[in-house]
Amino acid sequence: MEQLKHKILTEGRLLDGFVLKVDNFLNHQLDVELLDAMGAEFARRFAGVKIDKILTIEASGIAVAAMAARHFGYPPVVFAKKTQSLNLDADAFETEVYSFTKQQVYKVRVSRRYLKPGERVLIIDDFLAHGHATRGLIDIVKQAGAEPAGVGIVIEKGFQGGGKLIRDAGVRLESLAVLKSIADGKIEFA
Amino acid sequence: MEQLKHKILTEGRLLDGFVLKVDNFLNHQLDVELLDAMGAEFARRFAGVKIDKILTIEASGIAVAAMAARHFGYPPVVFAKKTQSLNLDADAFETEVYSFTKQQVYKVRVSRRYLKPGERVLIIDDFLAHGHATRGLIDIVKQAGAEPAGVGIVIEKGFQGGGKLIRDAGVRLESLAVLKSIADGKIEFA
Repeated sequence: MEQLKHKILTEGRLLDGFVLKVDNFLNHQLDVELLDAMGAEFARRFAGVKIDKILTIEASGIAVAAMAARHFGYPPVVFAKKTQSLNLDADAFETEVYSFTKQQVYKVRVSRRYLKPGERVLIIDDFLAHGHATRGLIDIVKQAGAEPAGVGIVIEKGFQGGGKLIRDAGVRLESLAVLKSIADGKIEFA
Repeated sequence: MEQLKHKILTEGRLLDGFVLKVDNFLNHQLDVELLDAMGAEFARRFAGVKIDKILTIEASGIAVAAMAARHFGYPPVVFAKKTQSLNLDADAFETEVYSFTKQQVYKVRVSRRYLKPGERVLIIDDFLAHGHATRGLIDIVKQAGAEPAGVGIVIEKGFQGGGKLIRDAGVRLESLAVLKSIADGKIEFA
């Protein structure tokens, strides 16, 4: 998606020359008009694919998934929760995910109320690197007896292997921008 | 907002007869079409008010704020973060908020990059009860030298006093649904 690549190149920041920060439009401040265009692009790429529900994970995936839902005919959007809230049903599907960002393992939970057997679920997230979070969501979808209809990612770090793991698992992956490399403060797209 | 009140009455669940759960359309599963209608209603209520930016707090406020932004001409949406992420700038505005839900004090942070002096900021959140989170966001807006242009809330628990504290502070508050009471498993709107 050229509009996204341009945004990454003009507004993304590289920490230490290799950590891409897109806090200014995706992870802390949101460019909702761009998110809406991303949603339209996901709908274009998954045209003809039956989607009953969209699943994402808090926090940065929520806005992307919500805007995408507009372009998929408003299916319910469910966001997986990373922490145990007293207000979340104890009766939940659960998996563990390792976060490189926070350097810790955290639990991801989705109430059994909101994923049902046979549902075709589109998984949407902001980043795909090693794929731990995305594979955790696929695991939860399968625990529910639902079917991963595909994975839509905003920015895939193509050099960190997560994408290959998902494709090898037979799940269709569509990333709006795939980074080939980040080196010496320079971003290259695949 | 009648559509919202109807949704609360038909799909909200009461735990122990007095805890309202709207996980099925606002806090875990999202009815994005309804959120879009909420955004339009916020825009109608704040018509003529200059809004430079929308500020919300993760996680449940994000989708509401993002959909609202569509109806305010796509101002940047910033979501305050509840936990310290290694990827969040250390140079941030910070305040402490007590959560009755989680029965703990947590830190709320917004990068100094995304709130600037003089900006008129609309604060959007899903719930207003005792008002701790909302007042924390107002505090952060003021720390930035910005101006709270108003507060837009989806569901205000009118019997828990948060709304009065915000109005008494001279900040305009618009709640789409105000609960007068929840008793004996019965919801009454103001």
